[in-house]
Amino acid sequence: MTAPTAPSMAAPPAPSMVSRMTALFLRVLTFAFLMVSLVIMTTNTGTIEIGIDEFKVRSKDFYSYRYMLAAIAFGLTYTILQIALTLNHISKRNGAQTSGDGNLVFDFYGDKVVSYILATGAAAAFGATKELKTQLAGLGGDKFFNKGYASASLLLLGFVCTAILSVFSSYALPKKV
Amino acid sequence: MTAPTAPSMAAPPAPSMVSRMTALFLRVLTFAFLMVSLVIMTTNTGTIEIGIDEFKVRSKDFYSYRYMLAAIAFGLTYTILQIALTLNHISKRNGAQTSGDGNLVFDFYGDKVVSYILATGAAAAFGATKELKTQLAGLGGDKFFNKGYASASLLLLGFVCTAILSVFSSYALPKKV
Repeated sequence: MTAPTAPSMAAPPAPSMVSRMTALFLRVLTFAFLMVSLVIMTTNTGTIEIGIDEFKVRSKDFYSYRYMLAAIAFGLTYTILQIALTLNHISKRNGAQTSGDGNLVFDFYGDKVVSYILATGAAAAFGATKELKTQLAGLGGDKFFNKGYASASLLLLGFVCTAILSVFSSYALPKKV
Repeated sequence: MTAPTAPSMAAPPAPSMVSRMTALFLRVLTFAFLMVSLVIMTTNTGTIEIGIDEFKVRSKDFYSYRYMLAAIAFGLTYTILQIALTLNHISKRNGAQTSGDGNLVFDFYGDKVVSYILATGAAAAFGATKELKTQLAGLGGDKFFNKGYASASLLLLGFVCTAILSVFSSYALPKKV
């Protein structure tokens, strides 16, 4: 009874070339989203008017935006590393045969942790922007906070790509048994 | 050559009784954290003094806290469902034999999605609380926002439990092949 299932069970759990290219595409997309999000956030400046005083505000003035920037930086570093590893595998043309269990486990935990970091970065930025915009309504900071929303939205898209990659890397995980 | 490996390969991928009890323990822990977080957040009220005016504030006055409450409600519903399913399996004393691939896939996506929702709920609450506390400093709302931190911290602990469960359910996932 077990004989017919043996060949399929013996197939290596390593991802195929097609799924490797899909993963690479998603990683490049993540990189693009995070990069644009980072540029918008770091170049974002605004002016808050309180009475006759004007205060110049920058992203790094807000704790939540600083956390968001740290999350983007972490995500970018990880994504660049993964793109480099994938290109290295593809260029060697033996990726499917040589990628060991260690790599698959690294991918699994890496994608998982980074996707949580990106999700929390985006959520913190959305939460902070919403409350700041409400509290400082009518003080001239709307454009600044709208750019905050734009940056957080791009980070959210980067998170979605990484979450999909995390599903892939979970399925590729070798069994603990 | 395939004969010696056949018995281990034929073993069901369903989790053992021990891992089922560990998962149940983590789910009960998640339930407790979320429940206390929910109670703190819903009963939290404070007073903001602006000049001679006093404004009563409640959690539902802030958009981020409303999102957080929705995340907790969603997490609680899912956790209670999972506890009920696990108890049902254990009471039947045949959990390991009957849990099909469908259940494992449900656990995998359920844990993954719920852990992301809990993480973003906690992050949004932390980000909003930090910025609100800074903006409204000296207006008497510190106690209100400290309770916001406490509630967000408990939600974060609930997220950590669910993230660990998500690792378990990823390892238990049947192979796509």
